[in-house]
Amino acid sequence: MIFASDNTGPVHPRIMAAVMAANDGYAMPYGNDATTQAARDAVRDLFEAPEAAVEFVATGSVANALALACLARPWDGVFCHRIAHVEEDECGAPDFYSGAKTILIDGADAKFTPEALEAAIVQCKARGVHGAQPGPVTITNITERGTVYTLDEIRAIAATAKAHGLALHLDGARFANACAALGCSPAEMTWKAGVDAVSFGGTKNGCMGVEAVVFFDPAHGRELELRRKRGGHLFSKHRYLSSQMVAYCEDDLWLEMAHAANARMAQLVQGLARVEGAHLCHPVAGNLAFVEVPRAAHARAFAAGAQYYTFGGTVADGPGDAALRCRIVCDWAKTSEDVDRLLEAWAG
Amino acid sequence: MIFASDNTGPVHPRIMAAVMAANDGYAMPYGNDATTQAARDAVRDLFEAPEAAVEFVATGSVANALALACLARPWDGVFCHRIAHVEEDECGAPDFYSGAKTILIDGADAKFTPEALEAAIVQCKARGVHGAQPGPVTITNITERGTVYTLDEIRAIAATAKAHGLALHLDGARFANACAALGCSPAEMTWKAGVDAVSFGGTKNGCMGVEAVVFFDPAHGRELELRRKRGGHLFSKHRYLSSQMVAYCEDDLWLEMAHAANARMAQLVQGLARVEGAHLCHPVAGNLAFVEVPRAAHARAFAAGAQYYTFGGTVADGPGDAALRCRIVCDWAKTSEDVDRLLEAWAG
Amino acid sequence: MIFASDNTGPVHPRIMAAVMAANDGYAMPYGNDATTQAARDAVRDLFEAPEAAVEFVATGSVANALALACLARPWDGVFCHRIAHVEEDECGAPDFYSGAKTILIDGADAKFTPEALEAAIVQCKARGVHGAQPGPVTITNITERGTVYTLDEIRAIAATAKAHGLALHLDGARFANACAALGCSPAEMTWKAGVDAVSFGGTKNGCMGVEAVVFFDPAHGRELELRRKRGGHLFSKHRYLSSQMVAYCEDDLWLEMAHAANARMAQLVQGLARVEGAHLCHPVAGNLAFVEVPRAAHARAFAAGAQYYTFGGTVADGPGDAALRCRIVCDWAKTSEDVDRLLEAWAG
Amino acid sequence: MIFASDNTGPVHPRIMAAVMAANDGYAMPYGNDATTQAARDAVRDLFEAPEAAVEFVATGSVANALALACLARPWDGVFCHRIAHVEEDECGAPDFYSGAKTILIDGADAKFTPEALEAAIVQCKARGVHGAQPGPVTITNITERGTVYTLDEIRAIAATAKAHGLALHLDGARFANACAALGCSPAEMTWKAGVDAVSFGGTKNGCMGVEAVVFFDPAHGRELELRRKRGGHLFSKHRYLSSQMVAYCEDDLWLEMAHAANARMAQLVQGLARVEGAHLCHPVAGNLAFVEVPRAAHARAFAAGAQYYTFGGTVADGPGDAALRCRIVCDWAKTSEDVDRLLEAWAG
Repeated sequence: MIFASDNTGPVHPRIMAAVMAANDGYAMPYGNDATTQAARDAVRDLFEAPEAAVEFVATGSVANALALACLARPWDGVFCHRIAHVEEDECGAPDFYSGAKTILIDGADAKFTPEALEAAIVQCKARGVHGAQPGPVTITNITERGTVYTLDEIRAIAATAKAHGLALHLDGARFANACAALGCSPAEMTWKAGVDAVSFGGTKNGCMGVEAVVFFDPAHGRELELRRKRGGHLFSKHRYLSSQMVAYCEDDLWLEMAHAANARMAQLVQGLARVEGAHLCHPVAGNLAFVEVPRAAHARAFAAGAQYYTFGGTVADGPGDAALRCRIVCDWAKTSEDVDRLLEAWAG
Repeated sequence: MIFASDNTGPVHPRIMAAVMAANDGYAMPYGNDATTQAARDAVRDLFEAPEAAVEFVATGSVANALALACLARPWDGVFCHRIAHVEEDECGAPDFYSGAKTILIDGADAKFTPEALEAAIVQCKARGVHGAQPGPVTITNITERGTVYTLDEIRAIAATAKAHGLALHLDGARFANACAALGCSPAEMTWKAGVDAVSFGGTKNGCMGVEAVVFFDPAHGRELELRRKRGGHLFSKHRYLSSQMVAYCEDDLWLEMAHAANARMAQLVQGLARVEGAHLCHPVAGNLAFVEVPRAAHARAFAAGAQYYTFGGTVADGPGDAALRCRIVCDWAKTSEDVDRLLEAWAG
Repeated sequence: MIFASDNTGPVHPRIMAAVMAANDGYAMPYGNDATTQAARDAVRDLFEAPEAAVEFVATGSVANALALACLARPWDGVFCHRIAHVEEDECGAPDFYSGAKTILIDGADAKFTPEALEAAIVQCKARGVHGAQPGPVTITNITERGTVYTLDEIRAIAATAKAHGLALHLDGARFANACAALGCSPAEMTWKAGVDAVSFGGTKNGCMGVEAVVFFDPAHGRELELRRKRGGHLFSKHRYLSSQMVAYCEDDLWLEMAHAANARMAQLVQGLARVEGAHLCHPVAGNLAFVEVPRAAHARAFAAGAQYYTFGGTVADGPGDAALRCRIVCDWAKTSEDVDRLLEAWAG
Repeated sequence: MIFASDNTGPVHPRIMAAVMAANDGYAMPYGNDATTQAARDAVRDLFEAPEAAVEFVATGSVANALALACLARPWDGVFCHRIAHVEEDECGAPDFYSGAKTILIDGADAKFTPEALEAAIVQCKARGVHGAQPGPVTITNITERGTVYTLDEIRAIAATAKAHGLALHLDGARFANACAALGCSPAEMTWKAGVDAVSFGGTKNGCMGVEAVVFFDPAHGRELELRRKRGGHLFSKHRYLSSQMVAYCEDDLWLEMAHAANARMAQLVQGLARVEGAHLCHPVAGNLAFVEVPRAAHARAFAAGAQYYTFGGTVADGPGDAALRCRIVCDWAKTSEDVDRLLEAWAG
């Protein structure tokens, strides 16, 4: 009963089967194999972007870091929300790869508005040679607080970035969950809305460890390859990465798993009404929620074997009726029974 | 009939089975799982080093880069052979991670002597604040030309490094093949000989993609973890890395596969007598050989479907009896028949 | 009538004379000359720190960047105020030299409290390996808004840093003005209060271009030298840097100039009462003030030849009675008449 | 009697006078002053390059590092001679600023041929994504061994670089001495011969500390400014740098001083015939010579107060008639008597 992260669950059997099937005899290394070419084409098809540069890596952190490093110069600022994975959870990987520094923007529910972005860019430009220069903008969808940028919101942010000649990157560690939530296609959420580069996540959504870095302008492709190699991220036995991505794209498995995870979260949100003293901290769009629950409820859940992260204190440091914030994440493999058991433990 | 690299072959079934078996239910991410703990212990056992810091990554390039970055300061020189993977084949990854620059040492058969190392260190020191400062020393075993450093040679290099207060790193992308060739234990080839850190390779030797970075002084462990994370190399679903390493260490599978690969290479070396005009460029110790073969022989092999790299020209740019150098690598899965077929094609 | 910065004024004649006097015959380069040794000793005397490591550079940006790079590891966060020179005005130099990233702390008047620092450190620690690690703390005195940290405030911040094992750096681009304002000795404002490293500025205070980087623990000295050289900041004809610093320290010229500059600012602050609609944005402690003045008053001053920076708009974009913020800086050479002329222009 | 380096001598009085004259009242900082504009124009005039991007720094190391960083991408190799200042004497500054790594080329007398460059580029390209990519080429004139590249030699190297699409940088720490030796104009030695960027040195040739970085394609100008700022090399009181450069260019003072230094070296070379057992290690073109002299002769010179560097041993470690290599450098202020005294001491 682990709700700590979507990376705690098992790999989907169809992904596993694809990895096994790839283990057939010999193949040339470093991506010069047929499976990798098929994986690139599968991603291009998915995004309706036949010319896109597509490369694979094994972690979301480096997908973001490489994408931003190809867009930012070392003296740039990277505009992101204060609550962003690139800022909080990558130990400075984007700074390390790009040389650039993050410029933090505030906004409710881990989202920023075009107006807030505009203000940050203007302030940045005012410093001339003395400050960081305006660089790429990056947003996350599903955000780090479980909310979603709508297509209109993405378009508006892209328009602001473009007006200043800045590129827009989308951290899609939970890209599939956002698509499922919005009911839109990958193309609609990216290049059709003005996104230039995307980290298309597979790891959190049922893969073993694979992410695609996608640039809709293929001119970035060679730099991406070289930066990946220089970061030690070019896999020699590349087919074991690529085969995951092929299976992930096939028959919309990526979307099927996201719908499953989102549905379990919807079940949990609906069931919260049964838990006295519980309420959501942010609107929930996908498979991730921040919830305030009384300490006594947490204690019951932990006793029942539930695992998840709490914030701002511990169960022990307050009375049982005092609220304590937690993060709950559902992955593709969570069952309706799992969610019910958590709700029951909370409800007491 | 691919002899291009040991990373072109399939993953060993026992490794694959372990990865499958790891895909059982939920596990905490980022190495906080039982499999990862077991893998660390397995490596510590293998090296008879119960206190060693052990972390896992997916590529050999980053294993080297992280190990050297933990040993070198940004203004240091890293002493290595002119023909070293860290110099030639990692697109500058060690420089990127450490900030340090390579100082190249010459020597026959991709090996350098303690005397050559001593001279390089002395020259480096003579520059005072103006030049790179003396930093760690790194050697490769099996070397990039297929030769092997003996235990005595490693001890002598370690003694020279230690006399100047410098650390010694061993690039063990083909560590198992070196152990098999020398008939020594991992401990004998490393800490007992004066090696401080080792990249213990699994990928080239039958794994899907896993390398262990080992520091015999555990004080380096925390820095290693942080550098790995900052490089985007901390896997969230870590059990799929660790399970490979567990199986690799179990029942000496690592050594069994290395013996198999070395044996196939020995068969090839022996069979060269049958190939007119063929001769070895360097002594062969493990699973890797550089061979000069007449162009006509290459042409026959390629026509028969063989794949491997040639150097210094192409088959077409000389007469059939002119020699052309090539690199042949055997992995664990090569069969006696594979080798015979290559020899037959060459022999004509 | 340039009030734009304290780096717009002339070099003090005694500094100039010292540079001329240094131009006598031959001297060994790279700091291996008698003048540089004398300059190091003069700074050590000034700080009552006979063991301190002291090196000279030509710009304040690199003094800060080198000091912080010696204190921070690449994966660290550097705690600073949101309004800090290292954050806003050095184009990322501290990030470039250290690899670390800034962690911004809020607080009134460009100062932060020990409580705010404590909260930032605790939040940083909570992220484990995923976030930047707690690194050095840096404060500026005189701050970027012209206010001053008292000795008690510095001690309290140092105590918080020390409680977490973190070092404290002081950006002293206007160190002399702070000493003059507080009436304290350099030792009292630094190591006696818990400061580990200081950028002791000369450039803004009447020198041509010289700053001392001071580490009270001399163990940092060698790293400082190497980082300076690697940054291209080791002057070959070093005596022309060092002679400035000798003269700066001699007969308390540094303090004399700071008192002069502060006095001119005090005169201006006092005279503000005569300017209708003018008021200070922050308490003024040294030679730097942020003032709100009606647009019409600015227009008169600019017409009279005054030069200084305005913020948040221009004279033209509002009615004459609407306030517009500006920054006024006095250097050692400003005269009472200069200040009066500005006040008169403002007063209209 | 210091012959250790051309940076041990005094600053020329006309340079000093210009610095003094610049100390007149107030001027806007960071290069936004009239003197800096005049200095840029003076350099453009000197190079007959009215559109060139020209910026000033205080050390030769950073001039080289910035120029190369603007030309190289982080994954590039920088082609230079094994005996180059950027390789041996800058503590890795070019690597630090650019991220790129040096690729060393051999050649007699610290010069490489177009053929050697071609071979290095071809070898570099052969590695594909695995090795450093071909980046800029850099040569030094006067070289680190005192020899000179002729215009024909520079043109041939430039042609080789251009054929591969690579830029050519000239490290001109002793640019003036090379021009004096070749009897050519700055334009002839640079853009007319195919050089893209030049570090035009003033420091070694009678200035206090100023170098111009010149890009003949002005598109590099903004990046140069930003990299300089980010390196902490943008002087606030910029007029004291710029005034040196104005005086240096005026009435060909740069060339006058170089001719004087070269003439003193010519006198020394001619006088060597009088010193038994002495001979030049390399042809001498400018103001720098490597000479082998018997140990007894060195001992006499040191006793007479001479200072210079010896290599490969000390006076004490061999018999008096055994040769010991030394480096002798003349600057603009060396007198005929200085040289005679050294020759007399050597001659015994």
